[in-house]
Amino acid sequence: MALSAIKYSRGKLDILDQLLLPTQSEYISVKNSEDGWNVIKKMQVRGAPAIAIVGCLSLAVELTDNGEHNTVGDLSPFICDRLQYLVTARPTAVNMSEASKRLSSLVKDMAVEPGQTVDDLRERFIKECEDMLVKDIAVNKNIGKYGADHLLAMSKNKAVKVLTHCNTGSLATAGYGTALGVVRALHERGKMSQAYCTETRPYNQGSRLTAYELVHEKIPATLICDSMAAILLEQHDISAIVVGADRVVANGDTANKIGTYQLALVAKHHNVPFYVACPSTTFDPTLTSGKEIKIEERASEEMTRVKGVQVAALGINCWNPAFDITPASLITGGIITEFGVFSTGDLKARLADCLKTEN
Amino acid sequence: MALSAIKYSRGKLDILDQLLLPTQSEYISVKNSEDGWNVIKKMQVRGAPAIAIVGCLSLAVELTDNGEHNTVGDLSPFICDRLQYLVTARPTAVNMSEASKRLSSLVKDMAVEPGQTVDDLRERFIKECEDMLVKDIAVNKNIGKYGADHLLAMSKNKAVKVLTHCNTGSLATAGYGTALGVVRALHERGKMSQAYCTETRPYNQGSRLTAYELVHEKIPATLICDSMAAILLEQHDISAIVVGADRVVANGDTANKIGTYQLALVAKHHNVPFYVACPSTTFDPTLTSGKEIKIEERASEEMTRVKGVQVAALGINCWNPAFDITPASLITGGIITEFGVFSTGDLKARLADCLKTEN
Repeated sequence: MALSAIKYSRGKLDILDQLLLPTQSEYISVKNSEDGWNVIKKMQVRGAPAIAIVGCLSLAVELTDNGEHNTVGDLSPFICDRLQYLVTARPTAVNMSEASKRLSSLVKDMAVEPGQTVDDLRERFIKECEDMLVKDIAVNKNIGKYGADHLLAMSKNKAVKVLTHCNTGSLATAGYGTALGVVRALHERGKMSQAYCTETRPYNQGSRLTAYELVHEKIPATLICDSMAAILLEQHDISAIVVGADRVVANGDTANKIGTYQLALVAKHHNVPFYVACPSTTFDPTLTSGKEIKIEERASEEMTRVKGVQVAALGINCWNPAFDITPASLITGGIITEFGVFSTGDLKARLADCLKTEN
Repeated sequence: MALSAIKYSRGKLDILDQLLLPTQSEYISVKNSEDGWNVIKKMQVRGAPAIAIVGCLSLAVELTDNGEHNTVGDLSPFICDRLQYLVTARPTAVNMSEASKRLSSLVKDMAVEPGQTVDDLRERFIKECEDMLVKDIAVNKNIGKYGADHLLAMSKNKAVKVLTHCNTGSLATAGYGTALGVVRALHERGKMSQAYCTETRPYNQGSRLTAYELVHEKIPATLICDSMAAILLEQHDISAIVVGADRVVANGDTANKIGTYQLALVAKHHNVPFYVACPSTTFDPTLTSGKEIKIEERASEEMTRVKGVQVAALGINCWNPAFDITPASLITGGIITEFGVFSTGDLKARLADCLKTEN
């Protein structure tokens, strides 16, 4: 059974502390938006979709059975302020920012409706957050389906070998996963001959989380160091590299976990197709190119210590960018979304069409 | 003052246990060739030149004041057998294999000389091993000089930024270092504006050892994860990548620490010159191309555990090649030797000339 990293019922949210994996499985109770901000900042929850869902649900829990905000005029700005605050925990991840904009807009519109009650406003907001959880799983299953279809069309339905990076699975989303959802879908069809995952330094999301999910689901899998991708592609018959995304901008440039750009270069050199798998909510058409994305830099300790053990020389200076930008030209396979697989050049137009049809 | 990882005086050999660095500095007493084999196998000593020196000196110590081999006919095959045994501890590193061939040949030739005494044979063998230690430092200083000259000619004498991989410094050689010797030489001339070193997973030779040396020598330096090389070259003005080598074959293909091939691809894409720095003894003209080099695969535990702490999911399969092969076409800067910097195409002929002149 797939892991459940987010356990939610009305008024109650528990999340699996991913910093303790793979050796301990402990859930943390998230009671309000401050708890939500903290678990996002500390990376106890991670992955752009999961960040947005946990962020919003933390506020939903705070508002459930909460008598503090007695008027629409009081509740509406409180929600907007808290959403904005939640965005600041991991500014690079676009999903929380998108959710904040969408929900703030909804709340503001509702607030000025004649006869609006505070209870209806609160209930509607909570329901919207709950829907995000349900919808995310459905979206991921479609990503998995389209990605598997595309890879198998290329392999003429022969079983494939896929390399992935970081964690984009049940532990990064509401469930199933994006890039790892593609791996899961291929495995469900009996077509995953070998999955490879990188360690994903410095935070080891690959060796800790992706490897944990792959073992849990009994998918044939092998862990490699980040530095081994080139020799892997050179010596093994890898069908594709599939990664997730934190943000895809108008021209298809993609911000994702540090190391993604390097993998894309390695793929290009070896003529292995490189795919980005993400929900359409990860797409940010307001930025024209990846150059406009601010790269978050994180603390040296992530690199110099592992579980409290010093692994690097004392006193060494570190550079620790959390993300890098993969130019669209290197995303040779395409962008796998819940609506289909699109080339980076077509992405903006095709997504606009799909979202128009859906709405 | 530069670190001394190999402390030797006649009959006594102590080596710094590199597995305990950077948090503990403990020396291990190496009393015989079996101890020598063990410290090489366990990687308590590492780096192709240091492996050869420690291997040979371990046998020299075993033979000092040793009354067991009373005749030339007894001592000569014993030495040859022990040298062959020492090669098996790390078969990929060519220097120990070269030293074994050279010293075995010397011992066999001496053994058939009329009037040869066992004491003279023993003394000559010990002296040859001791000379290796002295000579290695002189060789490295020349590598540093030629490398620094070459980089500064390219930069028009402006200070440079250099990325290096693994550890090739005082901790990998008798002293000074090869690729890190180039960094040292540049720093001595006031021309190293920033040195960058990779962590070098899975064994962290970069974060543990190279970073330790750079901090120790007060060279301005920054540690990055192996996956960050591409974004580093994209965003920072890196002058060159300089790495060491475990074996360079006739056509210039180079076996070196896992991750080297990937760095060379990244360098090529960003038009950053890529150099290999190594003594001429690392050159193995008996192999025509890198395809003939056997790649050693090491245990999964190197990847799944750090200092006894489990860092990967239990039950995950690992692929852990210790080396990779960088094709000569990607070594765009050249091969830095104690005789000068040569292009991969010229290397075989130029080294043959230099060695002829020297002998």
